[in-house]
Amino acid sequence: MRAVSIVGIGQTPVRKQHGDNLRALGARVVRAAMKDARIRKVDALFCGNMLGDELQGQKHLGALIADEAGMPGIEALDVRAATATGAAALRMAYMVVASSEADRAVAVGVEKMSTGMVTPALAKALDAEHEVPVGATMISKNADLMRTYLQRHDAPQDALVGFSVNAHRNAKHNPNALFRDRSVTPREVRKSRQIHAPIRLLDCSPICDGAAAVVLVPAEEARAYSSHPVQIMASSVATDHFRLEDRPDPLMLEAARNSARIAFRRANVNLEDVSFFEVHDAFSITACLLLEALGFAPAGQGWRLAAEKEIRLRGKIPIATMGGLKARGHPIGATALYQACEIVLQLTGRAGKNQVRNARVGLLQSVGGVATTMLTHVFTAM
Amino acid sequence: MRAVSIVGIGQTPVRKQHGDNLRALGARVVRAAMKDARIRKVDALFCGNMLGDELQGQKHLGALIADEAGMPGIEALDVRAATATGAAALRMAYMVVASSEADRAVAVGVEKMSTGMVTPALAKALDAEHEVPVGATMISKNADLMRTYLQRHDAPQDALVGFSVNAHRNAKHNPNALFRDRSVTPREVRKSRQIHAPIRLLDCSPICDGAAAVVLVPAEEARAYSSHPVQIMASSVATDHFRLEDRPDPLMLEAARNSARIAFRRANVNLEDVSFFEVHDAFSITACLLLEALGFAPAGQGWRLAAEKEIRLRGKIPIATMGGLKARGHPIGATALYQACEIVLQLTGRAGKNQVRNARVGLLQSVGGVATTMLTHVFTAM
Repeated sequence: MRAVSIVGIGQTPVRKQHGDNLRALGARVVRAAMKDARIRKVDALFCGNMLGDELQGQKHLGALIADEAGMPGIEALDVRAATATGAAALRMAYMVVASSEADRAVAVGVEKMSTGMVTPALAKALDAEHEVPVGATMISKNADLMRTYLQRHDAPQDALVGFSVNAHRNAKHNPNALFRDRSVTPREVRKSRQIHAPIRLLDCSPICDGAAAVVLVPAEEARAYSSHPVQIMASSVATDHFRLEDRPDPLMLEAARNSARIAFRRANVNLEDVSFFEVHDAFSITACLLLEALGFAPAGQGWRLAAEKEIRLRGKIPIATMGGLKARGHPIGATALYQACEIVLQLTGRAGKNQVRNARVGLLQSVGGVATTMLTHVFTAM
Repeated sequence: MRAVSIVGIGQTPVRKQHGDNLRALGARVVRAAMKDARIRKVDALFCGNMLGDELQGQKHLGALIADEAGMPGIEALDVRAATATGAAALRMAYMVVASSEADRAVAVGVEKMSTGMVTPALAKALDAEHEVPVGATMISKNADLMRTYLQRHDAPQDALVGFSVNAHRNAKHNPNALFRDRSVTPREVRKSRQIHAPIRLLDCSPICDGAAAVVLVPAEEARAYSSHPVQIMASSVATDHFRLEDRPDPLMLEAARNSARIAFRRANVNLEDVSFFEVHDAFSITACLLLEALGFAPAGQGWRLAAEKEIRLRGKIPIATMGGLKARGHPIGATALYQACEIVLQLTGRAGKNQVRNARVGLLQSVGGVATTMLTHVFTAM
């Protein structure tokens, strides 16, 4: 297989209500990423979108975006992995180039969540026969995790506030972030409205709209397209028992651990090599458990990384460096593509005021369902 | 990239109403295909399912089936291409092995269409903003094609009846076909109820439930798994302008032609090499237009292949050899996987009374939307 690099990125600002439709948002970032890569056509397009079936009544979005972007004819397919859908599109684009089935591919993610019944559509990531009928939703399952975590580890009730504070702090200088003007204090997080106990409003990533894309080519040709390419060192997927209840320990995200282990082996890197981590902070507890699953902190100690500010840009393991899901926003199908764009900016020294020093290796993890499906991607500057 | 072979197949009989749920159907054929390949675990699973969001309220089905099949932990992703979804799952499994990201992969398709509002869910394969609001459905678009075809070519009103007759004839000896006891005469087709003029009931593939799966490994290792492996010589995707109205000639299925051209080039075969063609006969007109797009007949003459019985098992180009979408059934996400299983049986001389003589090269095409997305796969015995 061939090594693969990102040579173009495209993002649109995350918004509460985008006036544009799915195809327009998708085509815009595809064109932006292609312009960045100085190309006019790709061979293949992989589209990530989780909720278009319900919220826009639209399937078959990859072909629609290819046509809208002026490339009718090319390969275009739709890929999903529940809430990790954007990362699935990235992985497919990676594979089509790695396998030599295409020389130039784009991974695009787009989601419009602002209108329609989002919560029941999101809950379809859970077990429709055993979880949803008894009232489970994505937020209720994560509330279970947070409650169990705080109790088992006898952690302070406000143990996790640092995750939200860090994310909002980093979003301030990201022009594509939803919450650019909304830095929050620990007190604000603690006092924010309780949404689903113990989860508070400021523990949650927002409902929003957005789109992002990256262009991939063989690594050996990357310099012909870009003066600042970034190599995808590894891509991996691992799953877990579908339901939390079937796992020996719900707080141990085995799929996150296994997916990272596979990716680190493929990339030939260690945890110590990771310069920064674009974490899937859909909820504060998710970020905390992922840090623990990967070994950045022992079980029960992940929250201390936040409390001690070690997740900040100058900390031991910077996370959510451009605002994360919490403050950049989490338009689901697009999220991992935003993160990939941000990783490219970090690794090529273009992250502005959010620049992580000596950024050599960027880590991206995406969570499908309640950590049922985990995708890991590892990147490095070339 | 590595050459890839199929070493195991699994099918469940297509039924009008399967008592089992999606995960049970999916897991059953995955296990059957793995048993056929004499393995207990695969590295990756790609799941094709088009309508589960609406009809079963279930997304994230790949991970659910992996868990149900006793393989929590493995890579599992969902793939779609509207009504060509099964073929998209096959292509992804092909790529994961071709790229060396996995050594053993399964492509599984499953669909349960018997309950719920199928027509509006299917119509989401069309343009939700420009086609669906003005009343378009999958059947109305195909009725447009059929009407245009009959008029332009001044063909007899019953020009296409041979497609349905052939499919039902071949289904009789396929134990997995929905219509095993239902051979039909040309007169029956002509007199069947008009569903959406000029399309009659017996021009349409049925609403039904089913699941099928294939196991893929590197071709060079295929003999270790199976005494009758089949190589995937090529896999390809092409798209067209999303809407029929935007195409220079709606009767010329450009994506079908282009996807086949790419696949034939990759496989290094010609049209003359094709021993039989598992065609996407969702409607009689679809089969007819595909035969013309690929060059098996000139424009306007595809129906004559059926009328002259050249599509039969002993004809010039046998199609729908095990019943096709029309009579085996078209449980959408599973359809291309059923076809892949049938191609394996044909190429390894195990198609029983339906055996095509000297079957060397099998062709599979899958139609997403109104030929917006076309996937082509080419197979050969090893």
